[in-house]
Amino acid sequence: MDLCPEDLARGYRFAGVRAGLRPDPNRLDVAVIISDRPATAAGVFTQNRVCAAPVQVSRSRVPASEVRAIVVCAGNANACTGEQGLADARRMTDVLAAELGVPAEKVLVCSTGVIGRPLPMSLLEPAIREAATVATATPSALSAAAHAILTTDTRIKVASRRLLVDTQEIRVIGFAKGAAMIGPHLATMLAFVLTDAAIPAAALQAILTRAVDRSFNCISVEGHMSTNDTVLLLANGAAGSELASDAALEQIEAVITEVAEALAQAIIADAEGATHVLVLDVEGLPTEAQARQVAKVVAESPLVKTAIFGHDPNWGRIVSAAGYAGVPFQERDLSLYLAGQLVYDRGQPVPFDAAALSAAMKAQREVVARLVFSLGSARCCFWTCDLSETYVRLNADYTT
Amino acid sequence: MDLCPEDLARGYRFAGVRAGLRPDPNRLDVAVIISDRPATAAGVFTQNRVCAAPVQVSRSRVPASEVRAIVVCAGNANACTGEQGLADARRMTDVLAAELGVPAEKVLVCSTGVIGRPLPMSLLEPAIREAATVATATPSALSAAAHAILTTDTRIKVASRRLLVDTQEIRVIGFAKGAAMIGPHLATMLAFVLTDAAIPAAALQAILTRAVDRSFNCISVEGHMSTNDTVLLLANGAAGSELASDAALEQIEAVITEVAEALAQAIIADAEGATHVLVLDVEGLPTEAQARQVAKVVAESPLVKTAIFGHDPNWGRIVSAAGYAGVPFQERDLSLYLAGQLVYDRGQPVPFDAAALSAAMKAQREVVARLVFSLGSARCCFWTCDLSETYVRLNADYTT
Repeated sequence: MDLCPEDLARGYRFAGVRAGLRPDPNRLDVAVIISDRPATAAGVFTQNRVCAAPVQVSRSRVPASEVRAIVVCAGNANACTGEQGLADARRMTDVLAAELGVPAEKVLVCSTGVIGRPLPMSLLEPAIREAATVATATPSALSAAAHAILTTDTRIKVASRRLLVDTQEIRVIGFAKGAAMIGPHLATMLAFVLTDAAIPAAALQAILTRAVDRSFNCISVEGHMSTNDTVLLLANGAAGSELASDAALEQIEAVITEVAEALAQAIIADAEGATHVLVLDVEGLPTEAQARQVAKVVAESPLVKTAIFGHDPNWGRIVSAAGYAGVPFQERDLSLYLAGQLVYDRGQPVPFDAAALSAAMKAQREVVARLVFSLGSARCCFWTCDLSETYVRLNADYTT
Repeated sequence: MDLCPEDLARGYRFAGVRAGLRPDPNRLDVAVIISDRPATAAGVFTQNRVCAAPVQVSRSRVPASEVRAIVVCAGNANACTGEQGLADARRMTDVLAAELGVPAEKVLVCSTGVIGRPLPMSLLEPAIREAATVATATPSALSAAAHAILTTDTRIKVASRRLLVDTQEIRVIGFAKGAAMIGPHLATMLAFVLTDAAIPAAALQAILTRAVDRSFNCISVEGHMSTNDTVLLLANGAAGSELASDAALEQIEAVITEVAEALAQAIIADAEGATHVLVLDVEGLPTEAQARQVAKVVAESPLVKTAIFGHDPNWGRIVSAAGYAGVPFQERDLSLYLAGQLVYDRGQPVPFDAAALSAAMKAQREVVARLVFSLGSARCCFWTCDLSETYVRLNADYTT
């Protein structure tokens, strides 16, 4: 990922530093994002009833009109940590806010890592102060921040777009982490999307909610919903005057959605132990929610995922998983194409060359299963990964 | 499993023979159960919208008052096989019925195996005729039938009970198969429970529905619902006069439930690649359905299952899975004991010796996770297994 200075949304500074939450002396673990001017902010958070302290704190502070910074730590989820956890999450924002000379409520907070352990605040506090001091508006600083939020990820995930709206050049840049407990090894996906457009907070929240539905809500590694999932979107207006016309907002929503999709796909491409990406293209149902439900259930079947790992064209597993998704259909309403081969045609099996199809699946990094229903016009494209022995090994030995 | 002649419910004959649906020349693959007198019959079937032809046929024939036989084939699920599949399933019952001199409607049918392949009827028909000829009321014949229904199972699952109701000695015997696609590798769990009590069909169906809720509906290997799941219960009255009093029916329901639980637990104990059984004991919720929902969601999390495989006391995965089960609670409403150790006490983490707890988990074939809520008095005990590298390997190479 080579970023140039012009990819950065204007008016933001970044830092990634090391507090020492993890033993490896080369790992960064604290990131900050600072907006030099007040930004409108929108957030989408985990639906889990067991949600981390930083989720509770950030959720209470967005949507907002004057956010100034985000502070993130990796290696400890600060989840299931009771009152102390809440106090620690707030303290993280207090420390950064004091460095910036702004009220704590204008700072948002995220964590990712092991659940159920208290945060080592004596390590975190000086690291947050250091980060505030060293933050700069450079590609290398953004890269350090993107590294600092990683857990079992093998690489950073960054996506950016520029567009012209009216006569304004608008920039959007995002970065994310997540390799399991996606649907979120640790505990989480985090994503931060920043733009220098000026967008009212209510419009920003609506844009983010729709963009997340079409991106992060269309991916799953194993379907374990994290306690810490957070997507934050800031808009600081450094590009120019406020964009409030429907046409302008539609243009920018399209680009924000593209950045979110690129980050979501990058999470799946880096999923723990994955050797193939499985794309579920579900079409022909009455509603998009039904298409997403079928895709999610198929995506989360360990039998489907192990078949893809083994490049086994065992299509009955896909059809049978669709059958228990809770979406009404008859077998004659469904056809299935696996890696481009029609294998099930309106309820009837289609003879095919299994060895050839298996070889085709093996050769593809990205395998597409296309489920075509005859019941409507809604569709959903959903990304998941295969389930490998490496995933099992990684997750069997995580905390011990 | 040593069965004596007195364990067999009276009035039933059994056979297991080889049609040749699978290449191994030593594998039996066709089973028949014949009742010498008309039996009342109850059934519980998969809820999958993609359901196998034999499920459709058997479901249309129960509850019933005069069932005479069940025919089963293993190695081919006869699912996603269209009209030909339905005709083949009916033909299986026609062939056995003709041998017995009864109408086809008095014969039930099940299949288990690979989805989407036509049944080789030219192999099956002579095998069914042979089975009808050789069926006997002996432990060795029951054992042959129990072997003939297996797929990836490593052993047969049989359970029996005898009880005295009024002055009648009642016998109940059951056998089952299933090693994955349990929530149901292939495609299925099948279970057959036979009693020589005389029980009216409506009462029999009510008994079976409740018994299945507390047994087969409380197990999961990976949560992939099969196209072929079937539990059948026959009651032929060979023991004596009809039992219709509430007290008598309660006594027999308790024993039928015990047999069903024993078979369900035997399925989990033989789950593909499993090295540990995980028992989820959920208590203190308003309803049993909520307790089962929490248990099922925790049981089906690959992150929970891999942690058990690695004997990693990573309890945050259990608590966080409970949090996305869709059952309302606050963190302070929940405590968790893992292998007897309190690790989470009403929303607060409890310090513990992780190495000692890991060693304890490693030493136990059966690990118990007890989730104690403070919201009611309903409970559920749910059995699942760990997720190992062997499971992945077995399921990656299944059809190819």
